[in-house]
Amino acid sequence: MACAQEMRSLFEPRSVAVIGASLDPAKIGHRIVANLVAGGYAGEILPINPKGGTLLGRTMLTSLNELDVAPDLAVISIPAAHVRGAVEQCGRAGVKHAILITSGFAEVGNVQEERNIVACARDHGLRILGPNVFGIYSAAAAMDATFGPGGILPGRVAIVTQSGALGIAMIGRTAAESLGLSALISVGNKADIDEADLLSYLALDAATRVVLLYIEGVRNGERLIDTLRAVVPQRHVIVIKSGRSERGARAAASHTGSLAGADDVFDDIMRQCGVLRATSIEEAFAWSHFLAYAPLPSGEGTVIVTNGGGIGVLATDACEQHGIDLFDDQQALQETLGSAVPEFGSAHNPVDITGGADAAAYEIALGGVIDHPRMRSAIALYCETGLFDVDAFSDLLRRLWSRVRTRKPMVVSLFGGATVEGVIRDLRREGLPVFSDVYDAVSSLGALYTSWRAQQRKTRIAPASDTNMADVQHIVRGALDEGRQALIGEELHELATLLGMSIPASSVAHSLDEALQEAQTIGYPVVLKIVSKDILHRSDAGGVALNLENEQELIDGYQAVLRQSRSNVPGALIAGVEVAEMVRPGVETIVGARQDASFGPVVMFGLGGIYVEVMKDVTFRAAPVSEQDVQEMIADVRAYPLLLGVRGEDRKDIEAIVPLIVRLGQVVSACREITDIEVNPLVVYDQGGGVKALDVRVLLQRTER
Amino acid sequence: MACAQEMRSLFEPRSVAVIGASLDPAKIGHRIVANLVAGGYAGEILPINPKGGTLLGRTMLTSLNELDVAPDLAVISIPAAHVRGAVEQCGRAGVKHAILITSGFAEVGNVQEERNIVACARDHGLRILGPNVFGIYSAAAAMDATFGPGGILPGRVAIVTQSGALGIAMIGRTAAESLGLSALISVGNKADIDEADLLSYLALDAATRVVLLYIEGVRNGERLIDTLRAVVPQRHVIVIKSGRSERGARAAASHTGSLAGADDVFDDIMRQCGVLRATSIEEAFAWSHFLAYAPLPSGEGTVIVTNGGGIGVLATDACEQHGIDLFDDQQALQETLGSAVPEFGSAHNPVDITGGADAAAYEIALGGVIDHPRMRSAIALYCETGLFDVDAFSDLLRRLWSRVRTRKPMVVSLFGGATVEGVIRDLRREGLPVFSDVYDAVSSLGALYTSWRAQQRKTRIAPASDTNMADVQHIVRGALDEGRQALIGEELHELATLLGMSIPASSVAHSLDEALQEAQTIGYPVVLKIVSKDILHRSDAGGVALNLENEQELIDGYQAVLRQSRSNVPGALIAGVEVAEMVRPGVETIVGARQDASFGPVVMFGLGGIYVEVMKDVTFRAAPVSEQDVQEMIADVRAYPLLLGVRGEDRKDIEAIVPLIVRLGQVVSACREITDIEVNPLVVYDQGGGVKALDVRVLLQRTER
Repeated sequence: MACAQEMRSLFEPRSVAVIGASLDPAKIGHRIVANLVAGGYAGEILPINPKGGTLLGRTMLTSLNELDVAPDLAVISIPAAHVRGAVEQCGRAGVKHAILITSGFAEVGNVQEERNIVACARDHGLRILGPNVFGIYSAAAAMDATFGPGGILPGRVAIVTQSGALGIAMIGRTAAESLGLSALISVGNKADIDEADLLSYLALDAATRVVLLYIEGVRNGERLIDTLRAVVPQRHVIVIKSGRSERGARAAASHTGSLAGADDVFDDIMRQCGVLRATSIEEAFAWSHFLAYAPLPSGEGTVIVTNGGGIGVLATDACEQHGIDLFDDQQALQETLGSAVPEFGSAHNPVDITGGADAAAYEIALGGVIDHPRMRSAIALYCETGLFDVDAFSDLLRRLWSRVRTRKPMVVSLFGGATVEGVIRDLRREGLPVFSDVYDAVSSLGALYTSWRAQQRKTRIAPASDTNMADVQHIVRGALDEGRQALIGEELHELATLLGMSIPASSVAHSLDEALQEAQTIGYPVVLKIVSKDILHRSDAGGVALNLENEQELIDGYQAVLRQSRSNVPGALIAGVEVAEMVRPGVETIVGARQDASFGPVVMFGLGGIYVEVMKDVTFRAAPVSEQDVQEMIADVRAYPLLLGVRGEDRKDIEAIVPLIVRLGQVVSACREITDIEVNPLVVYDQGGGVKALDVRVLLQRTER
Repeated sequence: MACAQEMRSLFEPRSVAVIGASLDPAKIGHRIVANLVAGGYAGEILPINPKGGTLLGRTMLTSLNELDVAPDLAVISIPAAHVRGAVEQCGRAGVKHAILITSGFAEVGNVQEERNIVACARDHGLRILGPNVFGIYSAAAAMDATFGPGGILPGRVAIVTQSGALGIAMIGRTAAESLGLSALISVGNKADIDEADLLSYLALDAATRVVLLYIEGVRNGERLIDTLRAVVPQRHVIVIKSGRSERGARAAASHTGSLAGADDVFDDIMRQCGVLRATSIEEAFAWSHFLAYAPLPSGEGTVIVTNGGGIGVLATDACEQHGIDLFDDQQALQETLGSAVPEFGSAHNPVDITGGADAAAYEIALGGVIDHPRMRSAIALYCETGLFDVDAFSDLLRRLWSRVRTRKPMVVSLFGGATVEGVIRDLRREGLPVFSDVYDAVSSLGALYTSWRAQQRKTRIAPASDTNMADVQHIVRGALDEGRQALIGEELHELATLLGMSIPASSVAHSLDEALQEAQTIGYPVVLKIVSKDILHRSDAGGVALNLENEQELIDGYQAVLRQSRSNVPGALIAGVEVAEMVRPGVETIVGARQDASFGPVVMFGLGGIYVEVMKDVTFRAAPVSEQDVQEMIADVRAYPLLLGVRGEDRKDIEAIVPLIVRLGQVVSACREITDIEVNPLVVYDQGGGVKALDVRVLLQRTER
């Protein structure tokens, strides 16, 4: 995890130099100084411009060199060609952080200059935010060092955005929505400082309760994951990741120059880290608003109170979609809320107090929920009726709110006309979690529950490895030293044994006689597989013969395997033919591990064959993984019921898959030369029957040691 | 389809009686009269109250009997116990429609009284809306006969809602959002008039361009489907159906007393009918706003113009999600929009004119899209920047809008602070399709494209049946007459032959000798299956023996099948043992047809076994179906690539599945005694190889003939 202390002078500098400060109010260098002044920054503001002059009552310095003490932070907004010089000057002077507002670097292909600047900064221990950013806002220092429109409200939500334009626009939008910010930072090209660095600070920042990340591409995913794992137990973390679709990912790549990670992997890993993924900015803002002030629930069990059956049903649908458990003790509901429900209403949850309900009925019902020890949270719904005034309802809400705000989570949705809309705006400004859309209200409560569950679960430590990594390394290096990028034959067997994989009895025969002898030892039926470093996909090459039941079939199979392999892969160097035990059928799965381009070591699980290839029914986790991670991952695939047993079949031996995936995760985490391990199929038998790895593929790469 | 003419006096009555009119402004009977007056209804308003008096300047009648000419419409708001009497009086007087505002009938279990009222109305040719409704608004007659808050704006959107509370609240909400209505009707308990009746009128109503349905449960689905099929080519139809989740469906059932149909079937059939399904009220309103005034596109090919890369990528993701094809001719984009894009922007679609863009750049880019013959629609995105004023942008939008509004669909999203929000409100009030959320903008355009595609496709007539229905009926009645609820043995073979299903050669043996003889005729390998009306699931009962390759295996199999069937289903009457051709393996599918409780005859398709049972990978269509319906239905399953051929396999014979499903649909549509036909598995071979039905199950019920 990145170091929080290192980021302190970025968020809480004692002094800020603005290099490129300008007298022209239309210029960025002017606006930043103006925002610093207007925002009430209490530290020293040092505008710098070679021409000198006076800006907003401050005498401009002509150069950093005029200062005796270097500023903590320098914001640089000068033409790209001059940036490197300015950074070098900052570095020499002892500036701790520099924000490069200037664009025209990696995002337009000018990669080398960006690298040079970072290298120069590193030489002086100077950390760089940007280039191609709009700056930083930090409530801790009352510092608006952006060129945005100003007027940022201080609060509990920290926004980290990869899109500058969106970030600038968010300044206005958050203010219009009364969404208070603890920080707002644009990371731009992430030449040096990235999300992980910023999160390390925000995790410890007293004001921040929610971190909202807008991400287009992940560069150093491993670091991000480590940081997120440390942050989630302390803070609610929401991510919006664009580039979900294939075309969107292409657009994102051309836009920021960073590779958008495969969206499925991203989605799985965020879930693993307990991060909430929002599908739109509106949704992320709705959640942020609520999570910034809501108390954590004390348990599952939500009660819906509504005066309209229709919105009650819509809310119930939304609860299922967002993983909210509805309180279900009918007797408790009747006892506590029954008197608020007329004969033709329903004390079933959703509790329909009907269109005739007045403030008193709401007070009985919601008051009952608030005071009941096992009703853990409330969803209050109000449909405008001709008969019951929204003003009476809003007064009631304010009273209830003062009772519930620190005790239980409650969300409210009001549906109606202009007056209702006005009431919603007023109540939101006062901090009440009131929404006009039922779905926004429910999804916000769902986000709280999801985040709470992630925070509740014990910190998961991947178990210490019981695999002899030195032996693994030895096998891998042996193959690499022979110039190969894959393990073959005996190497695969050795690795499988090291990983504790039960594999079919087998050995390699170099002649038909040897094959006959081996088959005798193993016992019929057997299978034959060609052994050749030139043939990776043995079935496709005709290099496999299955279910050979006797000597004659073995002889025919042996000849066929050799003939077909030679004819399909002409010139292939054939090391022999593997004779192996014919394996009992079971449920075929695929387990694997690999070095992901964005996220580093990941493990994978899916049901075999068609499920993976056609249905894309696979799940991923960042490695190393705990057993609990793997259990969740297995339960995540849609075809999971197959493992639980369908059509009266027995439950399969899921417990035998778990340690294998844990070990695969350990190996790809420890040994970066292994780019890919795929066990396909891994046959899973009935509970207690274990698993068998039928085929193992291992791909390698040389890394700097 | 229901008759539009019959509904005219409900929507455009020349006179309206309000039975239960009241002097007390808090009473519903008062508010309805007040709304009629305030809404400017031009027909005669006839308040009726036995006590007489003067209401809003109108003398109240003490009874309908005082009138010489019966009113077209009577709105009845009196206690439930008196409703039947009032309905009878209306009927006798010759009133054409009665709206029963009163609640306390089927929704609280008082089913019989509701039936009695409808029966009484039918005797007099009186049609009933309700009971348990809030009334009707109809712009065609400037008639607000509801007890809502008033102030409804006339417009192009007709809302039909099953939830009264939601409908009342929608009155205020639509006015607040400047969403104009052509009609608003609550259907309540649907004792007589249902959505289909109302749609038949709205399909021909000149003002209505969008129909928005809020549905909790479908009662007479067949009629609704027929009507929707007729309406969709004329109007955009949007549906919100609550009770999606299992728990929500239970809540909906307790709330309205009508069974919520299985959501998957509903979803598939709405798609078949070209109906747009919205997930929330907000989404439905956003779509309605746009669809009410947008011109239809002239083709596929949308261009996104943005000043922020981030929202451009978000919009691209949303386009993929909502089925919007992005315009892709790079040369045309460069030629037409290139000059609006600075060096570091992108003329790739999404076209990023960058944060430095001013009104002129937008004008070049969007103007280019408007004038280009192959760019069919536009998505304009604006992120508030410090540098380019939203007022300049809104002026530009108004200019562009006047050029594009009748020519091409365009949606706009503005993202920013309070000023931007104000501009959005103003522009929406002027009718411009401007949204604050990118997703709302894109999903609205997506809804237009989906509806347009449905309108474009030729009316699909299910082909005339080539099945001899008399023979089918004969088989079915024979079985029913024997008191059976399933077809067996020869009956199944005959039906299969009538349906043109290629089934394995087989015949029933009544002794081992016969079995041996049959196997000789058919040729080994063969399979054996027990024949018994007491054994429906033959595999489960051990009544099946597969792949018998010779006489000895046949003998063993014959004995095993009999022994196991007898031991597993003691007392089963065994009619013989079927000897059948052993079928080559292929892709296993399931096809079926049944009488759905909500929707009547439907057909079903899925990939066999696990895909259906575990993955729930099945699709449905309302029958009868056209070949095109079936082709779409088959392509809808997630495992469809299996039929197209994966891993280098050949394409399967999809063309052979299609006519079979068409015929199944014809049979269950024509013969309601057949409740279920399931062909499982239907084995599908490579293209040209046809299909084979391995097992056919047919269930029956007696219906009134």
